[in-house]
Amino acid sequence: MASRCEVFNSSAICFPSSLLKKPSSHAAFSPRTLLATNNGARRRDSTRLCVVAMTTVEAIEQEQMMSERPDTLLRDSEHEGSSADAPSSMRAKFEKMIRKAQDEICAAVEAVDGCSFREDSWVRPGGGGGISRVLQDGNVWEKAGVNVSVVYGTMPPEAYRAATSTSGIPVNKAGRVPFFASGISSVMHPKNPFAPTVHFNYRYFETDAPEGVSGAPRAWWFGGGTDLTPSYVFDEDAKHFHQIQKEACDKFDPEFYPRFKKWCDDYFLIKHRGERRGIGGIFFDDLNDRDPDEIFAFASECTNSVIPAYIPLIDKRKDTPFESKHKAWQQIRRGRYVEFNLVYDRGTTFGLRTGGRIESILMSLPLTARWEYDHCPQEGTEEWKLLDACKNPKEWL
Amino acid sequence: MASRCEVFNSSAICFPSSLLKKPSSHAAFSPRTLLATNNGARRRDSTRLCVVAMTTVEAIEQEQMMSERPDTLLRDSEHEGSSADAPSSMRAKFEKMIRKAQDEICAAVEAVDGCSFREDSWVRPGGGGGISRVLQDGNVWEKAGVNVSVVYGTMPPEAYRAATSTSGIPVNKAGRVPFFASGISSVMHPKNPFAPTVHFNYRYFETDAPEGVSGAPRAWWFGGGTDLTPSYVFDEDAKHFHQIQKEACDKFDPEFYPRFKKWCDDYFLIKHRGERRGIGGIFFDDLNDRDPDEIFAFASECTNSVIPAYIPLIDKRKDTPFESKHKAWQQIRRGRYVEFNLVYDRGTTFGLRTGGRIESILMSLPLTARWEYDHCPQEGTEEWKLLDACKNPKEWL
Repeated sequence: MASRCEVFNSSAICFPSSLLKKPSSHAAFSPRTLLATNNGARRRDSTRLCVVAMTTVEAIEQEQMMSERPDTLLRDSEHEGSSADAPSSMRAKFEKMIRKAQDEICAAVEAVDGCSFREDSWVRPGGGGGISRVLQDGNVWEKAGVNVSVVYGTMPPEAYRAATSTSGIPVNKAGRVPFFASGISSVMHPKNPFAPTVHFNYRYFETDAPEGVSGAPRAWWFGGGTDLTPSYVFDEDAKHFHQIQKEACDKFDPEFYPRFKKWCDDYFLIKHRGERRGIGGIFFDDLNDRDPDEIFAFASECTNSVIPAYIPLIDKRKDTPFESKHKAWQQIRRGRYVEFNLVYDRGTTFGLRTGGRIESILMSLPLTARWEYDHCPQEGTEEWKLLDACKNPKEWL
Repeated sequence: MASRCEVFNSSAICFPSSLLKKPSSHAAFSPRTLLATNNGARRRDSTRLCVVAMTTVEAIEQEQMMSERPDTLLRDSEHEGSSADAPSSMRAKFEKMIRKAQDEICAAVEAVDGCSFREDSWVRPGGGGGISRVLQDGNVWEKAGVNVSVVYGTMPPEAYRAATSTSGIPVNKAGRVPFFASGISSVMHPKNPFAPTVHFNYRYFETDAPEGVSGAPRAWWFGGGTDLTPSYVFDEDAKHFHQIQKEACDKFDPEFYPRFKKWCDDYFLIKHRGERRGIGGIFFDDLNDRDPDEIFAFASECTNSVIPAYIPLIDKRKDTPFESKHKAWQQIRRGRYVEFNLVYDRGTTFGLRTGGRIESILMSLPLTARWEYDHCPQEGTEEWKLLDACKNPKEWL
């Protein structure tokens, strides 16, 4: 087990090892707590080629790696002394929720895997940042990542119109809408071909009030989802996974599960193949039609349902004996995962085009994938059964 | 060697084995020479899930697989009795050139590899089609594909304006511009990490005359290029490859090579990483500023330069001893190849969105690829040298 874990930690990476250790406590945070100069010299030397990459995408504020995980990724004014009715209150609550979830989910994964997550924290000087945790080439998972991030940005009015029904558009002087986005995002690809991949992402958006415009319209919404991507379908696993999603939904609205289950099936479609990447779960976006605290509670419930929905499936399947043909099929399905994420996934394509931290965005890609020309399973095989479920979504409950 | 070749031929594929054999001669072709009914029954059974995929992309005319390779992919009126000054003359000449090149290049690859290409021919009832040849899991190549295709389609006026300086836009009654496109496209990924991947594509476009509009403006242009993607840089290999490209260019215009070399470096940029997928070659598009026969001769010269530019590099590197770390680096570079093709490549993204034959389009993806979180080679290593060449294009000659 030790040697397995060392593979990742000893590979050639961009940052000195001093950046990889987790701080033993939540140290007092200041945006000035950046990479110490004595580390900086070495980092510049060994990572010149990596840093170059970031400068070629336009309009990015270069992220700066942190030697320690910050207490908050919010701007000072938004987490210090914010009262319950302050506009930034939900920002602080949401960050607190996803940070706690990141800790709990990573702990649950580490307990099963035996290897530890590597942690990279980064901030942008103007505000925002992220904490990326990746467990690569572990005992159970090929690659598992759990990211939290906070983004302050601007979007064109069309994007705003598409996202909300609020009348009036709070553009800034450059004709764009300032926004705030905070979220947790995760993909976990296990090694065993009978153990499923999971993805979840929960996010909160707000449009910022334009500077100097008091009482300007402000919009907010929540989005997210949790979906399962097995290479082989076990009805009982699919049922368990969907049941947990339904229970989380039913606590708030009996219409949520059927609505968000269908939304999930529609969203994760690889259009050029006419197949979904997996067997779904729930997905929703632009949710702002009830009290924000209620939707926050719903998003929290969904986030907290990840461990009970997923970890039991891993416990059950991680040691199932398999043959090379099973692994080859898993690799082909990983290829489909790459196709969906690079061609269709909104978060990925938006991130790649707008200068997110590339390694955090592409953490979702599997460690390995395969494309065989014109591969098609024979009818009646277990591989065919999975493909059928991806092409013709089932009602699992 | 025999067992290696059998791996691909015995895998579960969509079409019955009777479709895989090449016809022994160029049989007389008619669009009605489609899949015989006795084969059709089995094909429908075993490929229902594959066929479903095609029906979900809008506005596609479903392709039909052919039991024999057609003599021409053009419509009857365009290859029968066309005279030198007929509008369709270049269509016929171009198809003849790329069909011959497909034969010669596949023969050269088979001679080195020892395994044979599988061939799939398909047509669309309204005209157009393709012949895809793929050699998968051979002795030398992991995956090599050489496709020719002919497409009759329509494009929006904006696309037409971007592609040509011809005044007047020959739209049809639906406000779109009918066009004709024919091309040869190929990607070959070798197994040995010291042997480079090559890609080439040469294509000819014409806008069709709208029905019933005599003397309507008609535009035409050529595009294409040949580029090399090694995982390890050998200066002598890069120099040889670029020298052959330059010699092909210099026969027509001394300004071609520097111009098309830079175009290639600009085009194959993975923007979100600030690195090119390889070490370039030549690339051009919208070429219509001299006599069409002269540009046709240039495109033919480039196509015929693929074998002398590439095969000697394979002969030299295919048996170089390597270690697992070299293979792992090759796999990471293959991941970059996937990123470029799925996110940026015009041919791929256009094809996926407009209903091309998916398996022919995605033939360009490698058999296997790898994504390691935050991988960055250490300065001075051979891996770093390749990355440097991808980030800072070199003048090899």
